[in-house]
Amino acid sequence: MSLYSPSIEKLIESFEKLPSIGQKTAARLAFYILNSSEEETKEFVTSILEAKKNLKYCSKCYNISDTDPCPICGNPKRDQSTICVVEDVRDIVAMERTHEFKGVYHVLHGSISPMNGIGPEDIKIKELLSRLMDGQVKEVILATNPRVEGEATAMYISKLIKPLGVKTTRIAHGIPVGGDLEYTDEVTLMKALEGRREI
Amino acid sequence: MSLYSPSIEKLIESFEKLPSIGQKTAARLAFYILNSSEEETKEFVTSILEAKKNLKYCSKCYNISDTDPCPICGNPKRDQSTICVVEDVRDIVAMERTHEFKGVYHVLHGSISPMNGIGPEDIKIKELLSRLMDGQVKEVILATNPRVEGEATAMYISKLIKPLGVKTTRIAHGIPVGGDLEYTDEVTLMKALEGRREI
Repeated sequence: MSLYSPSIEKLIESFEKLPSIGQKTAARLAFYILNSSEEETKEFVTSILEAKKNLKYCSKCYNISDTDPCPICGNPKRDQSTICVVEDVRDIVAMERTHEFKGVYHVLHGSISPMNGIGPEDIKIKELLSRLMDGQVKEVILATNPRVEGEATAMYISKLIKPLGVKTTRIAHGIPVGGDLEYTDEVTLMKALEGRREI
Repeated sequence: MSLYSPSIEKLIESFEKLPSIGQKTAARLAFYILNSSEEETKEFVTSILEAKKNLKYCSKCYNISDTDPCPICGNPKRDQSTICVVEDVRDIVAMERTHEFKGVYHVLHGSISPMNGIGPEDIKIKELLSRLMDGQVKEVILATNPRVEGEATAMYISKLIKPLGVKTTRIAHGIPVGGDLEYTDEVTLMKALEGRREI
């Protein structure tokens, strides 16, 4: 016999499906919803449905947005000749927080991962290449994650882009600011050494 | 300018309102929802709305349930003469997991907390007393949380129940099973000493 009544059980299961939510957190969230007012619940549900309904992909960079083109692609102040290639929409937000990058983005929506059956044709590489065809783009910055899949994806893309004569760069690997040499893994340290610059 | 488009921003805010969900987790959950299929989202939303709609309080013990009385109060095998008083519906589940308690419950839906403006009349104490009036109940086990508010609530209730001639007990405090004396705080250790039993 289940300890909760069926509809509560179902609600907890729904929350458990979300990433990084375990059984106990799911129960806590479910009871929070059950104890919240009718109005709050309606607001929560509406925000989910509205976001799902309004969701579009920007036809240029494949960012998720309410508008097409997305606010970044549509911003005349952004430098359209520099494209930063990222794996995920959230990576754009991380980059934007630096207030440093003034170019535009291209979201791959994944990385090449043969282990998970994701090949080059499953992510937005074709779409990136077609953006380079008009010769306006001067630099492509490959900002995929510094993991095996991200590295492989960066490698693969750079090999496709080079023949087009577009400058291709990769973001630097190294010790994070505020990090500690002692606690840095050897691969990162090796990359930090490789990437050393004269000062 | 916000980094996400308005409806995504709103969805993230909705998730952030949930307990124990910070900004980053909220963003992760929001993007999970955005990337999940139409059907999965519908199932998620439906489970919330269904649970909210079916939610009732058991008119005897104030457990949240699909039915009234709840499965525990309605179970003829449960001993109706022993009532275990808990603060929250989730505490019932914790107790049920022990498979030890065969009585019924009473959910207070909170604890007395003058700091937060919660007085005895704001929780289900009146309702507990009225259950004791027919003289069928032999024992009330006070299983409120071993914190200041829970202790005060247990004290308050025991003083009200004693004149009715009903046996009133409090769950034991002590060192958790598998715990370590060295790492046990002094109050728990004191309680463990106080509660020592002959073996």
